[in-house]
Amino acid sequence: MITLWELKGREDRRYSVFSWRARLALRHKGLEFESQPVLLSDKKAIEFSGGKTVPVIRDGERVVRDSWKIAEHLEARYAERPTLFGGPIGQGLALAWNAWVDRVVVPAMMPVIVADVHERVDPGDDAFFRKQFEGYLKMTLEESRAQRDKALERLQRALEPVRSTLKRQPFVCGQAPAYADYVLFSPFQWARVMCPLDPLGADDPLAAWRERVLDLYGGFARKVKTA
Amino acid sequence: MITLWELKGREDRRYSVFSWRARLALRHKGLEFESQPVLLSDKKAIEFSGGKTVPVIRDGERVVRDSWKIAEHLEARYAERPTLFGGPIGQGLALAWNAWVDRVVVPAMMPVIVADVHERVDPGDDAFFRKQFEGYLKMTLEESRAQRDKALERLQRALEPVRSTLKRQPFVCGQAPAYADYVLFSPFQWARVMCPLDPLGADDPLAAWRERVLDLYGGFARKVKTA
Repeated sequence: MITLWELKGREDRRYSVFSWRARLALRHKGLEFESQPVLLSDKKAIEFSGGKTVPVIRDGERVVRDSWKIAEHLEARYAERPTLFGGPIGQGLALAWNAWVDRVVVPAMMPVIVADVHERVDPGDDAFFRKQFEGYLKMTLEESRAQRDKALERLQRALEPVRSTLKRQPFVCGQAPAYADYVLFSPFQWARVMCPLDPLGADDPLAAWRERVLDLYGGFARKVKTA
Repeated sequence: MITLWELKGREDRRYSVFSWRARLALRHKGLEFESQPVLLSDKKAIEFSGGKTVPVIRDGERVVRDSWKIAEHLEARYAERPTLFGGPIGQGLALAWNAWVDRVVVPAMMPVIVADVHERVDPGDDAFFRKQFEGYLKMTLEESRAQRDKALERLQRALEPVRSTLKRQPFVCGQAPAYADYVLFSPFQWARVMCPLDPLGADDPLAAWRERVLDLYGGFARKVKTA
């Protein structure tokens, strides 16, 4: 059995943007796992991993930290199961895609939802979260909420290239989902679990794509505690 | 023999950003082709294709227009030759990558180089080019040149995600180049052929990657008339 360490919010919400990549990669491979919820501020709980961030998995004797490394590990160790990358070209390109999502989409989503996320983190993370994200944003969470409309516009613009792609094919990876879909899905799931506002309009091709990802694996990502 | 219709600049320069994708896709497949230079303003020359833009190829009886459709055609018809996409997942993701380059990188490159491009288009395209691009830019070519520093900063920011990827692997597609590399290379080749300013610093991981693409197929993209 694989164990996954991931962030725990109020009412047992699972909100870590990067852990959702690992969760869906595990399901894609048809692998069961046991969730180990940890607080954002509790670095002791994952000290064994050699790092300070989740996700971390233990798979037999192997400990792997970082969502990308976890995906690489699962693809290599479970090569006979459904592929996450579809071979070396797809894997290389998925790394470039991952970098785009991390450097463009996640930072664009963050100011849209961060004040709502804060209200739903574990009470033990309240002060830690505020300090970390206010440092990142260079403004208070309250100021960030007041500027949400502008942040939402920036997010919409950043997503434009994907929107045009999803008018032409059902998934980022073509006719069927693969790892690059889970990477892009992760900030939307972060939002869904922690923020009552939907950043996507109902007519957005991204909203229809998100529904398709939510349907996967028996509604695995749908059936969780949301905002 | 395959024929490729593509734009012709002064001193027989080949500067079409989209045609460079087709050129490199053809070389990747080990296919020879004959170049048919056309003017940007000469829509008659490519009327047979049913459209108004290059690249267009004729491959036996088949006429294919649009760089993406050409890549799909080559991949399907020459399936036994080196792959452009590495399978359906890589192909789906390459379409998403293509959309990002077209909607983010190409529009960011354009105001950096457009006044220099104009000086090197065929004299027969001089007025046509100015009208088309000034309409797109909503400013004159001269104004665009005066604001080049800002445009260059925006380009650098837009490229940040790729830079981080190319610190970790030699090509966008991993250890070896494939179609998504040619897509990203095309605006840099556009710049190289038409603009004396190099938009990339010598230490930029993108500059080293560009050299690797220029080395491919016996220096195919290197050995052309440049600015």
